[in-house]
Amino acid sequence: MDIRRPTLLLDEQKCRSNIKMMANKARRAGLIFRPHFKTHQSRAVGRWFRDFGVEKITVSSVQMARYFADAGFGDITIAFPVNLGEIAEIDRLAGEIELNCLIEARETARVLDLGLQSRIGAFVKIDTGYHRTGIDASDIETIEDLLGFLGQSAHIAFKGFLTHAGHSYHARDRGEILSIHAQSLRAMNALKETFRGNRPELILSHGDTPCCSAALDFVGADEIRPGNFVFFDWMQHELGSCDPGDIAIAVACPVVAKHEQRAEIVIYGGAVHFSKEHLTTSAGKTYGAVVPLDEHGWGPPLIDAGVSSLSQEHGIVTLPPEELKRIEVGDVIGILPVHACLTANLIRGYQTLDGQLLDHLSGSPQLD
Amino acid sequence: MDIRRPTLLLDEQKCRSNIKMMANKARRAGLIFRPHFKTHQSRAVGRWFRDFGVEKITVSSVQMARYFADAGFGDITIAFPVNLGEIAEIDRLAGEIELNCLIEARETARVLDLGLQSRIGAFVKIDTGYHRTGIDASDIETIEDLLGFLGQSAHIAFKGFLTHAGHSYHARDRGEILSIHAQSLRAMNALKETFRGNRPELILSHGDTPCCSAALDFVGADEIRPGNFVFFDWMQHELGSCDPGDIAIAVACPVVAKHEQRAEIVIYGGAVHFSKEHLTTSAGKTYGAVVPLDEHGWGPPLIDAGVSSLSQEHGIVTLPPEELKRIEVGDVIGILPVHACLTANLIRGYQTLDGQLLDHLSGSPQLD
Repeated sequence: MDIRRPTLLLDEQKCRSNIKMMANKARRAGLIFRPHFKTHQSRAVGRWFRDFGVEKITVSSVQMARYFADAGFGDITIAFPVNLGEIAEIDRLAGEIELNCLIEARETARVLDLGLQSRIGAFVKIDTGYHRTGIDASDIETIEDLLGFLGQSAHIAFKGFLTHAGHSYHARDRGEILSIHAQSLRAMNALKETFRGNRPELILSHGDTPCCSAALDFVGADEIRPGNFVFFDWMQHELGSCDPGDIAIAVACPVVAKHEQRAEIVIYGGAVHFSKEHLTTSAGKTYGAVVPLDEHGWGPPLIDAGVSSLSQEHGIVTLPPEELKRIEVGDVIGILPVHACLTANLIRGYQTLDGQLLDHLSGSPQLD
Repeated sequence: MDIRRPTLLLDEQKCRSNIKMMANKARRAGLIFRPHFKTHQSRAVGRWFRDFGVEKITVSSVQMARYFADAGFGDITIAFPVNLGEIAEIDRLAGEIELNCLIEARETARVLDLGLQSRIGAFVKIDTGYHRTGIDASDIETIEDLLGFLGQSAHIAFKGFLTHAGHSYHARDRGEILSIHAQSLRAMNALKETFRGNRPELILSHGDTPCCSAALDFVGADEIRPGNFVFFDWMQHELGSCDPGDIAIAVACPVVAKHEQRAEIVIYGGAVHFSKEHLTTSAGKTYGAVVPLDEHGWGPPLIDAGVSSLSQEHGIVTLPPEELKRIEVGDVIGILPVHACLTANLIRGYQTLDGQLLDHLSGSPQLD
């Protein structure tokens, strides 16, 4: 591999295997598989999903919906609260594809309804414990009021309830993830029970990679929307969602300095490549794991090694003495990033192990 | 202002005033002013510097050097350890402009010397306490050996010593910043004393915005390379480098949800706009300060308000009750980012208060 600058390597085989694993899991559980494309943001990776029958997808912005609609996806949920500043673009998109938006407030629904000419689907966002967005699952009155409004809307068709149990990311172990998952399922099923009387078609949509990776049981759920599993990352490994060997991306970083006394090397690879996301583990703060690169990809993570600090373009990598000896300035090492989504968003393009360059939305010309 | 999505607002007047302040400080101290352009990464902002006589600049990557060379800057220091994978591009650039690189190892210098046909200037990177890169200021033997090599090189001309006292960012107050600055000046002056005998032209180059903002005295220094001061940010305010009113950028973010019980709003503005850089202050963790926007720019930061959490596209903003009452979904609020450089790098373009759109390197077509 000819690597001159920080380069996001993508192992197509691992990626396809991750897609297959989650697609099979959804099929066996009888679920609609509507993967979140905010992780990869790539038309090329989108085509790999299509090979596993995926036509319905999730995105996190109107721009991302436009990008994937133009790439041929005809059924898209924007899993982000409606941004009223983009009604015109939402309206245009809804005239071209099946478009679902997220609503959690009657006033937003009212303004949206007034502004639309096309028809959209709407999921009501439910908060099952993450406390980021959504109506609290126990707040039946507010939900009922919103559903009452949607029932009379000419442009917004109620589709069901959607939740993101993102507090799974704060769980200490698999047991806690499963308990968050079970609690989230229970809360959503109770809503289905309450509201499906005259809305027999309503569906329950669940998301988040930790829960979808850990769980075997999705009783009552109709749809899942995990995203990160397409690549996985060091954070998902720490959460128990994957093995290090499942992680499908690594950032190839040139070594630019070596400091033996501190057992450190400096790589060209910093906050503008990895973001500043880090993990605090028993071994300390880490911004990524270190893997050796070879012609076929990368090997398992080095023990007692890690990215200990990041500035704009610099990364500091701590290594055990025997590894330090093998590495020289001018070499290229691999880093398994803490957070795949943010890393992919920053590097904005992929290089597969056979040298193909794949696009990323934010590497494409800005949409307007 | 017509804001539909997260938009990086730039107050040209504040920015020019920051440039003027630092240019004057350098002039009064008899220093070469070689500002670091990694913060703004914008040809347009580069032109404002030119209005204050700036022709020599600092950048942090070869790509950035190419971008600003193409914009007419003819004297550029790449303040990042030489990346041997980019020798060909360094060589091309050095054929067009005065180019300085950073060297800290004889072996790197040897490989570079072999690969170059053009002539470059070299600063030897000195570690005065930050411990990121550079030769320890007390390691005279290693420095002497490297200077010996450079003295015989056909393609690399030794220019002087360069340091970045980045540990100033960890200082608790202005006193500690000044003490880091004084210690860094002392260490560098000692080197000048040791090595200027047969190298009378050697210069000392200092950088970092906290020290350059706090210090009044630069005895022995010949050049300063601060960067962040062009915009300043919430981190610099916390460090005492600036007043909130000096901060020249704010991210305009649409409000997409409101949660009165938690005294929170949700903005369209997340880790893909701000990075995950945060500060831990007495008031807790913050990813940015909140300012009201108006037609002329933005007002002072709201008291007891801040961005408390970020996910990919979502930001959670905590507000006091009386402010919460005034804000509705669909409004747009301003955020003073924690770290201007990373925010500018992510948003990749500026909108001035009179509506001009200014470019950013990473919003431009990828260079190769």
